[in-house]
Amino acid sequence: MIFRQLFDKISSTYTYLIADRIDGEALIIDPVLENVNHYLKLLGELDLKLVKVIDTHIHADHISGINDLKNKTNCITIMGDKTDLDIVSLKVSNNEVINIDNLKIKAMYTPGHTSESFSFLMGDRIFTGDALLIRGTGRTDFQNGSASDSYESIFNYILKLPEETFVYPAHDYNGNTVSTIKEEKKFNPRLQVKSKQEYIDIMNNLNLPDPKMMDVALLANTGTLKDS
Amino acid sequence: MIFRQLFDKISSTYTYLIADRIDGEALIIDPVLENVNHYLKLLGELDLKLVKVIDTHIHADHISGINDLKNKTNCITIMGDKTDLDIVSLKVSNNEVINIDNLKIKAMYTPGHTSESFSFLMGDRIFTGDALLIRGTGRTDFQNGSASDSYESIFNYILKLPEETFVYPAHDYNGNTVSTIKEEKKFNPRLQVKSKQEYIDIMNNLNLPDPKMMDVALLANTGTLKDS
Repeated sequence: MIFRQLFDKISSTYTYLIADRIDGEALIIDPVLENVNHYLKLLGELDLKLVKVIDTHIHADHISGINDLKNKTNCITIMGDKTDLDIVSLKVSNNEVINIDNLKIKAMYTPGHTSESFSFLMGDRIFTGDALLIRGTGRTDFQNGSASDSYESIFNYILKLPEETFVYPAHDYNGNTVSTIKEEKKFNPRLQVKSKQEYIDIMNNLNLPDPKMMDVALLANTGTLKDS
Repeated sequence: MIFRQLFDKISSTYTYLIADRIDGEALIIDPVLENVNHYLKLLGELDLKLVKVIDTHIHADHISGINDLKNKTNCITIMGDKTDLDIVSLKVSNNEVINIDNLKIKAMYTPGHTSESFSFLMGDRIFTGDALLIRGTGRTDFQNGSASDSYESIFNYILKLPEETFVYPAHDYNGNTVSTIKEEKKFNPRLQVKSKQEYIDIMNNLNLPDPKMMDVALLANTGTLKDS
């Protein structure tokens, strides 16, 4: 298998390029618009054909590259079925499986950070988007976010995976590249709560500033600035 | 095996934390001083005992964390045997093997970026320091760097490894986390030369500015500012 974790320094976004083998089909998860040419170059060098691209959710901190990749490669754009974005050509439901050659990626509906957030499970790796971060969780204070949903998605779905499952998030701001379910259960400070209400109280009192690029990113990512 | 690639955003440095198993011995390669507490916390969470720490070479762009890690954990500090730094407690020679529980890491003398640069090979992964970067090579215009040595180290040593070997460098400025020997052979623009002289000419005409922190980093890393 080919597996590449790619980092966007400006937004601290992790993008994942996945393929079963050289000269095969490829999938990209959470691409950043500014890096599309970098992805295309790497795909070419590895003799890969991009067939599918996923956004785990509507990003508020960077402009997604899925539309540009679709235009340039004719790949299928995928999000979970809770989105109403026109640019998405395949909307997957909870538990639906996406195939890339012989690789199987299972969609998991994990709302909370936003109401349409999905995670994607491939073997012993879960791509959590912003649902679960390394030693953190995605904020729940905009885009129909819900601390209650976040709690349910994390405690009653994601953390039920085998403890050795690797956690690959859409962001990290502290230099980490990967974690495991076991580590997050034990050491994620937001997950050491005794009750759902305690988690909700934490999330509702983060008082974070809006992401720097939020207005531009949301306009672009929801299609209003499709051609920008 | 536990394998963690950790990123320092300020200097774009990759640090590697490696252990055979949870509750075992750990090794860190190319630590950054500012992140030492982050490494110590992660070591604690993973129930690891830091026994050895390696600098691939004397870094000019960040202050190394090896001295601080030694003070705080009593670990062994390792560099190749071409260094004369007092803070190094074990100087390994070309082909010497370092053990971490059952893991074996082979030292490879790969001068060029600096005269004392070593790379370290562990199974199918090589930690190249700045000897070989992803689609680049370490500059050779200070610290007794030599474009001729860089060519020899890369073409006649590193690139002789099996093509599927993963390349993990000490830096990346373009969002890449890993490459392979095969990719670098085929796509590293500096390695598409027809002669050693052509490579030397490229390296001698890069006209790069000095690293931002060079004066402070070199003073600290060569021990003159040991207690800083």
